[in-house]
Amino acid sequence: MGVVVNLDSGKREASIKPLVELTRTDMGRVNELILSKAGSDVEMIPEVANHLISSGGKRLRPMITLAAAAMFGYEGDGHVKLATSVEFMHTATLLHDDVVDESDLRRGKKTARTIWGNQASVLVGDFLLGQAFRLMVEVGSIDCLDILSSAAAIIAEGEVMQLAAANNLETTEDEHFAVIKAKTAALFSAAAEVGPVIANASRADRAALRSYGINLGLAFQLIDDALDYGGSSADMGKNVGDDFREGKITLPVILSYRRGTPEEREFWKSAIEQGSNGDEALERAINLMARHGAVADTIARARHFGEIARDALAPLPNTPQKSALIDVIDFCIRRIN
Amino acid sequence: MGVVVNLDSGKREASIKPLVELTRTDMGRVNELILSKAGSDVEMIPEVANHLISSGGKRLRPMITLAAAAMFGYEGDGHVKLATSVEFMHTATLLHDDVVDESDLRRGKKTARTIWGNQASVLVGDFLLGQAFRLMVEVGSIDCLDILSSAAAIIAEGEVMQLAAANNLETTEDEHFAVIKAKTAALFSAAAEVGPVIANASRADRAALRSYGINLGLAFQLIDDALDYGGSSADMGKNVGDDFREGKITLPVILSYRRGTPEEREFWKSAIEQGSNGDEALERAINLMARHGAVADTIARARHFGEIARDALAPLPNTPQKSALIDVIDFCIRRIN
Repeated sequence: MGVVVNLDSGKREASIKPLVELTRTDMGRVNELILSKAGSDVEMIPEVANHLISSGGKRLRPMITLAAAAMFGYEGDGHVKLATSVEFMHTATLLHDDVVDESDLRRGKKTARTIWGNQASVLVGDFLLGQAFRLMVEVGSIDCLDILSSAAAIIAEGEVMQLAAANNLETTEDEHFAVIKAKTAALFSAAAEVGPVIANASRADRAALRSYGINLGLAFQLIDDALDYGGSSADMGKNVGDDFREGKITLPVILSYRRGTPEEREFWKSAIEQGSNGDEALERAINLMARHGAVADTIARARHFGEIARDALAPLPNTPQKSALIDVIDFCIRRIN
Repeated sequence: MGVVVNLDSGKREASIKPLVELTRTDMGRVNELILSKAGSDVEMIPEVANHLISSGGKRLRPMITLAAAAMFGYEGDGHVKLATSVEFMHTATLLHDDVVDESDLRRGKKTARTIWGNQASVLVGDFLLGQAFRLMVEVGSIDCLDILSSAAAIIAEGEVMQLAAANNLETTEDEHFAVIKAKTAALFSAAAEVGPVIANASRADRAALRSYGINLGLAFQLIDDALDYGGSSADMGKNVGDDFREGKITLPVILSYRRGTPEEREFWKSAIEQGSNGDEALERAINLMARHGAVADTIARARHFGEIARDALAPLPNTPQKSALIDVIDFCIRRIN
């Protein structure tokens, strides 16, 4: 039986442990498949792929796929392939992202591009995306293929949207939601939805998991954005101020800019658009965010999406999987404390 | 009825005109689908995509798909989607290639990356690859999905192989064939094979078209490599010496290096590995190639593969499509004259 945890009650600490426990056996198979399918006679491919794959990501997305399939009584092994496929799509995106963002660090480790170059990162990303599609094709479900291939195109579309909006402080909150919905939430949504699809669950069950995924993804990204300007970063392999130094438009920045005085807006322009983003500027940015409640309200928006994700699952029977997936929402939001 | 043209007889000039004529109506539908599926509300996507798409490529690959389907009596519209998919995969590869090779010109026009940057080229490539998969999924043939998704992974694997062998003059001819088989021939092969597959043709027919595609692709790439060191380049949008200046390992270089004196090998090292590749060096390279018959033998290898491609189609009934596909082989090889 699942235990429903109230988001704000704090009765017990929500964590991803239940999800990790429930999916342990299947994740063992996912990890084997990852190693085998990231392999190639072309030496550079497993080198680059494993560098990122073994860099300590939580593998949240494949665990969601596994739990979402088990939740509806799925008993085959297609969910293991789909989960691997989802993780490969995620890894490919990270490889390409680091090239696009010119990032030197990810999760506290050097990025692949700083070790093997942009070229290898682009191409190994392409290879992993190809392997992801092969795995889906092996499963043979046209509905799953439809969901995951659409996600692939939408993710790329979101990344281009982000690139086009780069450094643009006039970006509205809604425009920003459209970007993170595409670049982050679409994959969470696809990861969750293929579970009921492969298990032949009902249309309503599919819609429930899809809605859970998209809203969890939005909450996840907003908390990520908030963490860049404070909160405990030990878990993140991310240093406070990374987004700021890259001039990234995130919700805390959008809110601070829109709520700021004309003089404050000049500060944001010099910091985000013109790159005056040293330590002193970061300190001022964090102070301005505190004054305008920008980080607090980013977290409030994340809670809003988190609650929609929770309600999406509400009508489903209480199962350990449902409980574990709800804990994931709380875990994502509590990361910020 | 098809007219079988002998490769060396020169009775008439082989061209791609018969293929263009046979596929004209369907290519009109492919071109519409390309425009519609390369569209997006994210302005930068159609801009970047159309820059390359409208840059005057011959669209050989989608024409091959269309002809290969019609050849076996296919009457649906899946072949139009598959052909579009193939062209998108090709376009995505070119966008990523230009980033990897740091190329400034393609087909005589500025590359997308010089206009919109590497970032947009990587991401729009990803978007087109995603759209390619969506189109295949719409067609719904698991066999076609298998063929095309495998090709996507193999192409990327080939590109990484090429990157790993970059500037390495010790590359053997066989190793080089493995690279171009993956990076170029795999897509020709997939483009040809999905024709009989969508038309529910026999296993033997599938194998025939697959073999045609792979060998045509090898011939095509070898002629491309040869053209870089001479021949008429008007048709190519490629200047003599482009590969040389990029330090690319191609067959004319491999043959010249292996057949050269120790002193000549030193020249190749300074030119290809150390980048002493000015006009004088190019002139010397072309002279050395002539001395060792390196370009002539590259063309001979291309003819060898061309003949295998021709024989692959030999047992099939004589149809206008078969004749047109054979003309393509001759056309590819005659480009060099």
